[in-house]
Amino acid sequence: MKLASYAAPTGTSYGLVDGEQIVDLKMRIGSSYPDLKSLIEMDAIQAAEKFHTGVTADYHRDEVTFLPTIPDPARIYCIGLNYHAHREEGGRPEVKDPTVFMRIADSQVGHRQPLVKPLESDNLDYEGEIAVIIGKPGRRIPETSAWRHVAGYACYNDGSVRDWQRGSSQFTAGKNFVRTGGFGPWMVTADEIPPGTNLTLTTTLNGAEMQRGVSDDLIFPIPKLIAFLSTFAPLRSGDVIVTGTPSGVGAYRDPKVFLKPGDICEITVDKVGTLSNTVIEG
Amino acid sequence: MKLASYAAPTGTSYGLVDGEQIVDLKMRIGSSYPDLKSLIEMDAIQAAEKFHTGVTADYHRDEVTFLPTIPDPARIYCIGLNYHAHREEGGRPEVKDPTVFMRIADSQVGHRQPLVKPLESDNLDYEGEIAVIIGKPGRRIPETSAWRHVAGYACYNDGSVRDWQRGSSQFTAGKNFVRTGGFGPWMVTADEIPPGTNLTLTTTLNGAEMQRGVSDDLIFPIPKLIAFLSTFAPLRSGDVIVTGTPSGVGAYRDPKVFLKPGDICEITVDKVGTLSNTVIEG
Repeated sequence: MKLASYAAPTGTSYGLVDGEQIVDLKMRIGSSYPDLKSLIEMDAIQAAEKFHTGVTADYHRDEVTFLPTIPDPARIYCIGLNYHAHREEGGRPEVKDPTVFMRIADSQVGHRQPLVKPLESDNLDYEGEIAVIIGKPGRRIPETSAWRHVAGYACYNDGSVRDWQRGSSQFTAGKNFVRTGGFGPWMVTADEIPPGTNLTLTTTLNGAEMQRGVSDDLIFPIPKLIAFLSTFAPLRSGDVIVTGTPSGVGAYRDPKVFLKPGDICEITVDKVGTLSNTVIEG
Repeated sequence: MKLASYAAPTGTSYGLVDGEQIVDLKMRIGSSYPDLKSLIEMDAIQAAEKFHTGVTADYHRDEVTFLPTIPDPARIYCIGLNYHAHREEGGRPEVKDPTVFMRIADSQVGHRQPLVKPLESDNLDYEGEIAVIIGKPGRRIPETSAWRHVAGYACYNDGSVRDWQRGSSQFTAGKNFVRTGGFGPWMVTADEIPPGTNLTLTTTLNGAEMQRGVSDDLIFPIPKLIAFLSTFAPLRSGDVIVTGTPSGVGAYRDPKVFLKPGDICEITVDKVGTLSNTVIEG
């Protein structure tokens, strides 16, 4: 199933995406599960199943405004430098542990919403990534049972304001400008993507391919990330792990490529879909 | 005024601390302001004023369990390497911008609650700091008006699991183990500490002074931090800025000093109070 959060004419909601159509779940099961995060929290994704076939759609996809798949995750953990080719293009050393930084919810936008190049910088860069959405919570999760904690997958554009990322050793400022990260278009539930599936990820800018990677090349694969992150703090339902970007980011190109107003940046993860965002300034 | 969050016999609450006594605010104005963050959000700290004198106390301080002053901040921004002497003891270069990393709410404990040295490490270190609690929200706040956005001040122990902090370039893992950061004992409202007051900060371990600093020595002073952080994302009411630790942390002592079960670590900020935490393992 594809599950999306969106603003409908009647307010914020979430539903099941089937081709061009959306079956609204909030109007059907919203009294028990007011948003997608609560559906996941209450381990009730299967409650959505029965609306998957034979139910008349409520909206065409063009009638809603997509929100970040989880609009308000308690935690958005991003993993830096998790593909060798990207680590090498940045001249960074190998490290013992995953490189973890955090994004805040304000830094996100949904599918088809504009990314915002801030007034303060002309160095907004794309980073196509695979996002993992946590289902079952847990602390100190062993790698061997980690897949059981995944609710689903989405595309993520870990938009990065490079000059602000590099003003100190810590990435936080450059990774958290308002509306610089794309998250969507929806999550595909884990039952459709067997554990360990080798997912291909591509980033295009105005139609030209800029990045291509496969999840088999992750230095720290998804089970290891779940085990690592859950060692220091419990993972909660709706937490997001953004697994890292492959090589080809704009900052390491010659000449450098940064996002400008009017650009269209798209992240595609196979079996998931394509996250598309234009760019504005603000 | 001193405003604290705590668990009372009747449930989580918040109130006004006056010497050894606490006047519970939730039972008086909780229908409008259910917690301390909402009191701040609604710009209603003055609504607490009328209970400051002549009101019979509800609890003795020993009857409540203090919680982190703001138990669930939307954002906890921590500033690293913000005192020259601490930057130098760590052999770190000068930087253009503040060094910003984030803590999550789960990593906090309140006054008199035990800090938890995790099973995974024997390298839990103290870091005494001054915490600023944001009142009036805003984005792109100029330094010149930054003080107006401060609701109050508290003590913070930015407890750091050093080996996990250094497993990669980013500090997140080592700064976010469950219950490793102390926040309290309460906030002192900004009206009692005029803008720019030079606050003295000390850390003691089992009674011995380990750190001493003054806020006049901050490399990036509070107004600059507010201006910087609010450039990339709005600061919200109840957001916390943990302003950095002076020299004397355990990791740079010879021999190194790390927190062990049974230790008592105390952070004192003058005009604010003393945050006291024991240490357990877990």
